[in-house]
Amino acid sequence: MQVTVSRKAHFNAAHRLHNPAWDAERNREIFGKCNNPNYHGHNYELVVQLTGNIDPDTGYVMDMKVLADLINAEVCARFDHKNLNLDTPEFRNLNPTAENICVVIWNLLRSKIDLNKQLKVILYETERNFVAYEGLA
Amino acid sequence: MQVTVSRKAHFNAAHRLHNPAWDAERNREIFGKCNNPNYHGHNYELVVQLTGNIDPDTGYVMDMKVLADLINAEVCARFDHKNLNLDTPEFRNLNPTAENICVVIWNLLRSKIDLNKQLKVILYETERNFVAYEGLA
Amino acid sequence: MQVTVSRKAHFNAAHRLHNPAWDAERNREIFGKCNNPNYHGHNYELVVQLTGNIDPDTGYVMDMKVLADLINAEVCARFDHKNLNLDTPEFRNLNPTAENICVVIWNLLRSKIDLNKQLKVILYETERNFVAYEGLA
Amino acid sequence: MQVTVSRKAHFNAAHRLHNPAWDAERNREIFGKCNNPNYHGHNYELVVQLTGNIDPDTGYVMDMKVLADLINAEVCARFDHKNLNLDTPEFRNLNPTAENICVVIWNLLRSKIDLNKQLKVILYETERNFVAYEGLA
Amino acid sequence: MQVTVSRKAHFNAAHRLHNPAWDAERNREIFGKCNNPNYHGHNYELVVQLTGNIDPDTGYVMDMKVLADLINAEVCARFDHKNLNLDTPEFRNLNPTAENICVVIWNLLRSKIDLNKQLKVILYETERNFVAYEGLA
Amino acid sequence: MQVTVSRKAHFNAAHRLHNPAWDAERNREIFGKCNNPNYHGHNYELVVQLTGNIDPDTGYVMDMKVLADLINAEVCARFDHKNLNLDTPEFRNLNPTAENICVVIWNLLRSKIDLNKQLKVILYETERNFVAYEGLA
Repeated sequence: MQVTVSRKAHFNAAHRLHNPAWDAERNREIFGKCNNPNYHGHNYELVVQLTGNIDPDTGYVMDMKVLADLINAEVCARFDHKNLNLDTPEFRNLNPTAENICVVIWNLLRSKIDLNKQLKVILYETERNFVAYEGLA
Repeated sequence: MQVTVSRKAHFNAAHRLHNPAWDAERNREIFGKCNNPNYHGHNYELVVQLTGNIDPDTGYVMDMKVLADLINAEVCARFDHKNLNLDTPEFRNLNPTAENICVVIWNLLRSKIDLNKQLKVILYETERNFVAYEGLA
Repeated sequence: MQVTVSRKAHFNAAHRLHNPAWDAERNREIFGKCNNPNYHGHNYELVVQLTGNIDPDTGYVMDMKVLADLINAEVCARFDHKNLNLDTPEFRNLNPTAENICVVIWNLLRSKIDLNKQLKVILYETERNFVAYEGLA
Repeated sequence: MQVTVSRKAHFNAAHRLHNPAWDAERNREIFGKCNNPNYHGHNYELVVQLTGNIDPDTGYVMDMKVLADLINAEVCARFDHKNLNLDTPEFRNLNPTAENICVVIWNLLRSKIDLNKQLKVILYETERNFVAYEGLA
Repeated sequence: MQVTVSRKAHFNAAHRLHNPAWDAERNREIFGKCNNPNYHGHNYELVVQLTGNIDPDTGYVMDMKVLADLINAEVCARFDHKNLNLDTPEFRNLNPTAENICVVIWNLLRSKIDLNKQLKVILYETERNFVAYEGLA
Repeated sequence: MQVTVSRKAHFNAAHRLHNPAWDAERNREIFGKCNNPNYHGHNYELVVQLTGNIDPDTGYVMDMKVLADLINAEVCARFDHKNLNLDTPEFRNLNPTAENICVVIWNLLRSKIDLNKQLKVILYETERNFVAYEGLA
């Protein structure tokens, strides 16, 4: 009996989209305003979803307080109020698009959660743009 | 041509998380504030999703008014403005975690909906915590 | 490494649910207030989801600005501030239920998006009623 | 001790913005897509706010169930699933802009609510456009 | 130059509406399902608004972290995961309607905030029912 | 007959809270994570409210398309995808707190809107923190 539990969190960060293999003109052409060399930023909303069995003793798939603490320690403490390009090793050589941030968060959490639970991460960059990743198919 | 239709509903209820096989100390340790013997409560938001074929005569997978009435009769009339632990037979011997409430609602609805439609139930306990169940895999 | 990207859009339209093969009484019985011969209307919220690989050069599954422009050209320009029954050839002979509108939008977009990307369309007719379609199973 | 209580409701309707004193060209110029002769529509969200004293016996400014029934009888039954221009006497000679709909709703409710309570009506035409009226200054 | 700053918070609680001066029948007649002797509950959403001058050194009317901590200490620590009728002295002899809870919260905060700032409290009992209080007129 | 019309808009920006008259330690003490020298960022949601008379010819207080264009030209074009501290003259010598940004936006719009309309600006820095300004009392 597989149930999916979801927990929302959020963090605020600055970022810039840029491919160092391209010249300035091509970066502006592809990334537009997101290529601003002085950065811009977002309120990132994060949903972490775990699918697994209900523990008959607790009635929980996972204790939401424990999951909330884990998200805080692994994701929010790392990225909140940071400049993703300058302050975080994860994006020193990786373009911080919503897609890449989502995969990075999935990898950070995957190693901390029992493998008998499936993991999916949904990341809202704005209310209108959001992405999801659930691991290799 | 399978389409998924979704209908939102809500109910307000009191509950307490508690495992009678454990002593008071262990219950407080595991369930924290949710173990308050005097109960606390939530506005539960419910999304019921059915996946099936579009009826060529109506253009509907299912008439949303009929589905809304069914949710009201089977779920809201049972749980709205109730104390889940004290007032409902479903949770007399089942800990009313979001996970267990979601599975109970799925079972209540499954028996009332044509088996040629898949059923998924999503239950928001708060805006930040929600669960989903779609039957045995 | 398959990632899903989602883009929200919206359009406002009038419509009427009606089956011309039925008499007026049966139409009123089945479609209720939605059968009003003078039409009613909705703010339709649309989510378009694409699942595909991240392009290593851009970090994008698809450029959201390009996707937003495509949704605008193919969907919003066609349906926004329109009477679906009277103003659009798509619903001249098709009942504009949320289910049918969702499938029509999926077909309009499918032909414009690379087939190596899966497509899913979610359409909110109201906050409480929404539908989703992801193509033939 | 003045407290403000608010109740949300909603209705769906078709409408067209048009000034019969102007020719077709001027109507199109001023009202744009909203002048479509075949109508378009919206999910109108309504907030009704009453400011008054708390009744010491009930702890209520006004019973929300009574207020909800009043909004339903006076507003939703009149406008829900209607074409505001064709189906309602209120807008036969009044352009159904959000501003005018809001004032009409205020007037409909004002006569049904005790004058010792101030009344304010907020009407959302879309999530991005909304209006408010609280009577003559 | 008066600016209003707002901070959202939330707490979950059980409550029962009841007037001990009335018999059971009159309580059921007036309070309906809210009179359930076993309680029901809500996710209360709270908005605290302060109006005052911008401090030229900080650019703040009030530091939002300080305000968030104050709301947490004075309101959430007191009411979160509580039964308002049984667990809190504030509602031992006061019916915990949304109106009365809002006034109680306003009074708890008023004594902790500089009097050169105006205070308004908005309390959402559900998404559809909410109340506001800003002190004696 | 004064009616208030509201229009929502949004922009994304990076910023850093900092008082150059203070040393680094005091800046960190007062502004905490918001003092990050590499900046962080937000999705700013903006509501612009105008209160005035309904024009009897249009039924509008102000044409929302015209207001939307004005907000875009005066606010979004200036701040969207910018670093407020580095890219905008308005915040070269003004700490970009939500309070100060809100007042700056009010001043930018005030000079472009007829003085017979009152103006109020509400700015959401996050879903939980927002500010409002309506001019000198």
